[in-house]
Amino acid sequence: MKKPLNIGMIGYGFMGRAHSNAYRKVNNFFDLNHQIVLKAACARDAAKVKAFADNWGYESVETDWRQLIERKDIDVIDICTPNNTHKEIATAAAYAGKMVLCEKPLSMDGPEGKKMVEAIEKAGVPNMVWYNYRRVPAVTLAKQLIDQGRLGRVFHYRAKFLQDWTINPELPQGGAGLWRLDVAAAGSGVTGDLLAHCIDTALWLNGPIDSVCAMTETFVKERKHTQTGKVEKVGIDDACAFLCRFSNGSLATFESTRYARGHKALYTFEINGENASIFWDLHDLHRLQYFDHRDEGIVRGWRSIHVSDGDHPYMGKWWVPGLQIGYEHSFVHQVADFVAGVEKGQPAMPDFRDALRTQFVLDAILQSASEGRWVTVAKE
Amino acid sequence: MKKPLNIGMIGYGFMGRAHSNAYRKVNNFFDLNHQIVLKAACARDAAKVKAFADNWGYESVETDWRQLIERKDIDVIDICTPNNTHKEIATAAAYAGKMVLCEKPLSMDGPEGKKMVEAIEKAGVPNMVWYNYRRVPAVTLAKQLIDQGRLGRVFHYRAKFLQDWTINPELPQGGAGLWRLDVAAAGSGVTGDLLAHCIDTALWLNGPIDSVCAMTETFVKERKHTQTGKVEKVGIDDACAFLCRFSNGSLATFESTRYARGHKALYTFEINGENASIFWDLHDLHRLQYFDHRDEGIVRGWRSIHVSDGDHPYMGKWWVPGLQIGYEHSFVHQVADFVAGVEKGQPAMPDFRDALRTQFVLDAILQSASEGRWVTVAKE
Amino acid sequence: MKKPLNIGMIGYGFMGRAHSNAYRKVNNFFDLNHQIVLKAACARDAAKVKAFADNWGYESVETDWRQLIERKDIDVIDICTPNNTHKEIATAAAYAGKMVLCEKPLSMDGPEGKKMVEAIEKAGVPNMVWYNYRRVPAVTLAKQLIDQGRLGRVFHYRAKFLQDWTINPELPQGGAGLWRLDVAAAGSGVTGDLLAHCIDTALWLNGPIDSVCAMTETFVKERKHTQTGKVEKVGIDDACAFLCRFSNGSLATFESTRYARGHKALYTFEINGENASIFWDLHDLHRLQYFDHRDEGIVRGWRSIHVSDGDHPYMGKWWVPGLQIGYEHSFVHQVADFVAGVEKGQPAMPDFRDALRTQFVLDAILQSASEGRWVTVAKE
Amino acid sequence: MKKPLNIGMIGYGFMGRAHSNAYRKVNNFFDLNHQIVLKAACARDAAKVKAFADNWGYESVETDWRQLIERKDIDVIDICTPNNTHKEIATAAAYAGKMVLCEKPLSMDGPEGKKMVEAIEKAGVPNMVWYNYRRVPAVTLAKQLIDQGRLGRVFHYRAKFLQDWTINPELPQGGAGLWRLDVAAAGSGVTGDLLAHCIDTALWLNGPIDSVCAMTETFVKERKHTQTGKVEKVGIDDACAFLCRFSNGSLATFESTRYARGHKALYTFEINGENASIFWDLHDLHRLQYFDHRDEGIVRGWRSIHVSDGDHPYMGKWWVPGLQIGYEHSFVHQVADFVAGVEKGQPAMPDFRDALRTQFVLDAILQSASEGRWVTVAKE
Repeated sequence: MKKPLNIGMIGYGFMGRAHSNAYRKVNNFFDLNHQIVLKAACARDAAKVKAFADNWGYESVETDWRQLIERKDIDVIDICTPNNTHKEIATAAAYAGKMVLCEKPLSMDGPEGKKMVEAIEKAGVPNMVWYNYRRVPAVTLAKQLIDQGRLGRVFHYRAKFLQDWTINPELPQGGAGLWRLDVAAAGSGVTGDLLAHCIDTALWLNGPIDSVCAMTETFVKERKHTQTGKVEKVGIDDACAFLCRFSNGSLATFESTRYARGHKALYTFEINGENASIFWDLHDLHRLQYFDHRDEGIVRGWRSIHVSDGDHPYMGKWWVPGLQIGYEHSFVHQVADFVAGVEKGQPAMPDFRDALRTQFVLDAILQSASEGRWVTVAKE
Repeated sequence: MKKPLNIGMIGYGFMGRAHSNAYRKVNNFFDLNHQIVLKAACARDAAKVKAFADNWGYESVETDWRQLIERKDIDVIDICTPNNTHKEIATAAAYAGKMVLCEKPLSMDGPEGKKMVEAIEKAGVPNMVWYNYRRVPAVTLAKQLIDQGRLGRVFHYRAKFLQDWTINPELPQGGAGLWRLDVAAAGSGVTGDLLAHCIDTALWLNGPIDSVCAMTETFVKERKHTQTGKVEKVGIDDACAFLCRFSNGSLATFESTRYARGHKALYTFEINGENASIFWDLHDLHRLQYFDHRDEGIVRGWRSIHVSDGDHPYMGKWWVPGLQIGYEHSFVHQVADFVAGVEKGQPAMPDFRDALRTQFVLDAILQSASEGRWVTVAKE
Repeated sequence: MKKPLNIGMIGYGFMGRAHSNAYRKVNNFFDLNHQIVLKAACARDAAKVKAFADNWGYESVETDWRQLIERKDIDVIDICTPNNTHKEIATAAAYAGKMVLCEKPLSMDGPEGKKMVEAIEKAGVPNMVWYNYRRVPAVTLAKQLIDQGRLGRVFHYRAKFLQDWTINPELPQGGAGLWRLDVAAAGSGVTGDLLAHCIDTALWLNGPIDSVCAMTETFVKERKHTQTGKVEKVGIDDACAFLCRFSNGSLATFESTRYARGHKALYTFEINGENASIFWDLHDLHRLQYFDHRDEGIVRGWRSIHVSDGDHPYMGKWWVPGLQIGYEHSFVHQVADFVAGVEKGQPAMPDFRDALRTQFVLDAILQSASEGRWVTVAKE
Repeated sequence: MKKPLNIGMIGYGFMGRAHSNAYRKVNNFFDLNHQIVLKAACARDAAKVKAFADNWGYESVETDWRQLIERKDIDVIDICTPNNTHKEIATAAAYAGKMVLCEKPLSMDGPEGKKMVEAIEKAGVPNMVWYNYRRVPAVTLAKQLIDQGRLGRVFHYRAKFLQDWTINPELPQGGAGLWRLDVAAAGSGVTGDLLAHCIDTALWLNGPIDSVCAMTETFVKERKHTQTGKVEKVGIDDACAFLCRFSNGSLATFESTRYARGHKALYTFEINGENASIFWDLHDLHRLQYFDHRDEGIVRGWRSIHVSDGDHPYMGKWWVPGLQIGYEHSFVHQVADFVAGVEKGQPAMPDFRDALRTQFVLDAILQSASEGRWVTVAKE
């Protein structure tokens, strides 16, 4: 008989749905000692959270997250609210002894994140941040190949995350679904939203970043705010690009924007090593491109690996070779790894401390862009 | 309050899993008046069906499908057993007044299928066959584009379904997971297993087929049978290719094999019309390739459509643009359409009668290959 | 000091240009003992052949090919005229002791081709047919890989050659540039024009074809004839597809059409062997796709080989790795190989005898399509 | 009767070959009033230049470029020697009244280039710099699309030029074929060699660059010098990446390296405009990727344009649709445009003055990388 693991979900937006789906699926596909239970959903809008709870099968609802945290029947608090609420909720949840799963980015900035790490570590509760792309099977495979030493000395890393959904200047800022355009709620624009993903993956695959030099731009300077009804200055960065140097001596370029016409969610990364190179693309997330210089010369070429075989990461749990999975599965894998980690006493990464490293890079980027100079990334 | 729709599942193999996953997900993503309930799972092996039921949350188990059919608390019988059992189960279920969902191919051959259609139509119960690829969003989009008349007169259709998993002659035939290699259980090889999918899609997109000319081959002549333990003659076709003519005047080539090294499940189809062409590939199922000759000359080219926008078929129900779904979602869409069809009194296709048309083409293919000549496809 | 090799060119159309370009380039890039000399160009239209000769630097012109053949200062007769003239010219040229280079297809049919082979072999002159695609470096590489035994037992071959330039029914038949639509000049439609290429490559890569089963179609039944000014019946096949069996036991599908909207000259072939597979595409002729099952499982995938390295066939003669060559270079390679073959006494393939094998397959295809049954391919 | 245009070629390396091929081909494919004549080839090594001249059909040789420049029978001096010789030769040739074609980059740095511009403009002779990629048909098409205003406001530009041929530390520097690794001859590494191409294209397509922020790296610090025989410090940059801002308000990233395993000559650029985006890739130079947001939503996607139709730039001069040309043709086009420009009195771009703008950007890049800060690009 499996032990229940009771989830208390805060938020019902895009991430609330993605996580709920993962919770509902994980026990069907992964062999865990715990049974995930959708115990309670929480949000301020009673009607909306009720509808959300009904849709996903949450057993109960709350309209005050403080009430949720006090409930004895909740094991895990999952924070799917805007960035400016993470710290308060996570800290309180940790203090209440709950496991804490927090959406990314961890915090509004590094110093705030540092306090969250201190709180969560003091509480000693299992914790994790939802940098889900690590668990796209092709990305996990990339990590395996790197850990096996196949690349040799790394010379270059390049990543970008391109979207095009905010080109229309009539799009407002703030409110449901649009809080990412409101600097008060989001902290920053593409830097915290998209580059945070790129940096998390990069730190995982290629180690620490020493220094960065960035530029940002806000193409649409004013947008109507949905909460005030007024046209207000846009405080977020619409685009951000930066150069950086990793501790392993490799050079990198990163770029993110919501103004790259033709790209919906084109997150790509490439690593060039002495012996081999790797490329991945979120728009075809089930493939990994791999080049190995040790292949015989006349048949050397980039290999397009259809990451759907039983011996590829996570894929033995799903269908049969050739049949792809999608975006949502990365969350299922993250839940599976978190629960397995709790069971084995080996936490699944990234935890708050690990996610804080991304926060320091984000701080350096924004500072660099603001000051127009190279900035050294803070260490913990 | 939603009305329950109680599922009785027969079988627990690959399709049993795919359908169960669909049942569990459909109410989370689609707005239906019914709530799917996993009422009972049925298979001869009590231990295995119990484990399956526990894993997926079926409320009860049966070890005799006749018992399942007699249960008053079952609304829908879902047949996920080998092909040679479809007729008996489906007929009995229809007779018992159950809705019937049957895995493809419908039957062992056309005459058998015809009897199934007669039985099911006499019973007057909703029914459907699991040709799931119609509901991959990119394929549904292809259908929309064709129905809108974008292609003009059609000249060519070509489809193939290539796999490579049976090249090893040590692979046995028969038994769990391998009944597809045993002609007694499967009826045929790639013809009924893979070409059936290609034909279903083709009839849907391009109308009736008049005549076919086929060849088949069995590359590995003998394989150990897992049930007898002896090396036995292989009765299935390992590969099948055929030419055909559609009623609309277009010409076509079809091919399927399990000996195409490098392809795991490469189902592709292409339609060439007077004005436009369409191409799709299961290995990248979230994309549709579209060429429109009416585009201005200097910027004319094949468009790679990332079928993940809210106005693409089914995609408004899932995530956000750029984030792909996978293989399993086609089953969720089929359940959603079936239930909505039941609610509206408009059955979702393909029903048994529609699937019978594929059966007649399969018969003509096998006859043509056997006799080495062109064969006219039987009409109902 | 290089010995001159004097070319007498007959025709000034598309192939006349392609060959002339090859003659002018070959000594710049290949180390040969002979210097190609553009001695004379010949065609009935005096003004046009004069302009052609001036453009390409031919030293003289003739308006009667019989005169050209009688000239003592001509070593090689290059036949770039419509198919229905090949036999007479080639036979006369051989009788006059000239080397003969003949455009493809060799002849109007097998029996005619057989007489040409007899004549040319009796004359004992070097001869070759312009199946140029063998010498696209990626195709030559495919041949090397096959000859090295990398594929193991071959199961499947599939080829197609798709165009879309005759969909418009207003396009006339006959005359300059359009003789390919006139059955009197061309002998057949896509079968002799396009499938001939596919078959030549296939015989070269995969050995003899035993039997074929074909269908053809003429979508536009009547077209204005440019020479009579009248609307006349179209005698060529607009499309042709066939199944076949090779002597090595492999199965194949071939297809060609000029009604595949979106494809300009999409010649593709694929070979599936026990151990490896190969795919090539004329629209990206500088690449070869290669899959090797012996690659380690988790990094197995189709390799996209950019065939531009110095150790790739012919490529050491051109630029540097990464810089592609184009269509026209296949002719340069063929001239280089022909001249080198003459110098070494080892003729370059395909010679007339080799090209006759393609002719027999073409005959079988047209007979099969006409009679609606399988036809055995004639052997010499 | 065409007027002769007599070429005096200095150098016989990679570019000497590429230009000679272009000179030999241009009159066969382009209708010009002049006939190119390969009058003389010049280089210090008498035996080598003689062999080169014989191979390409130059009528005479010189071993001192000053002698060549003094010859009355030379109209055009083509400079294909290392970068550190451009100024002296170009200035002398201009003074002697010759037209001057100079390999890129124009000069060792901006100030040197400025003097060259002054000298050439004072002499009033036609002049051009070999930034050949502008005349790859797909790139020229990109320029057309931009000039037609299809993109709208431009937000982003990104380009890279990746190679992998210097990863091996045993590769020496200096001497034939390797002078690009010797800072004394080359001036810089990938910046002047590869980024110069990227910048020339970018300025042409997207207008002036205001400011840059760069980083460079030399991965292999010491290499044997082929001329001294000693291991010497490597003075060039092995890799360079930079951020920049264009005058039109768009942001850009550029990167170049010779340490990107798997890429031979991967020059790519992408432009994202308000309404449309464009992408090009040298490894498949005959294609242009184009996305137009004004396409109907459900069939919107990146179009892969096979730039081989008669109405595509330059392509009407070559073969038929679907048949690609290669790298070398960009030089043929440049010669054709130069000669046509001379005939019409409208110089073909880029001339020295235009190429100087690239030089100023290169200077800013190297300064920025050296000083670790943003640098404003000098205007003329």
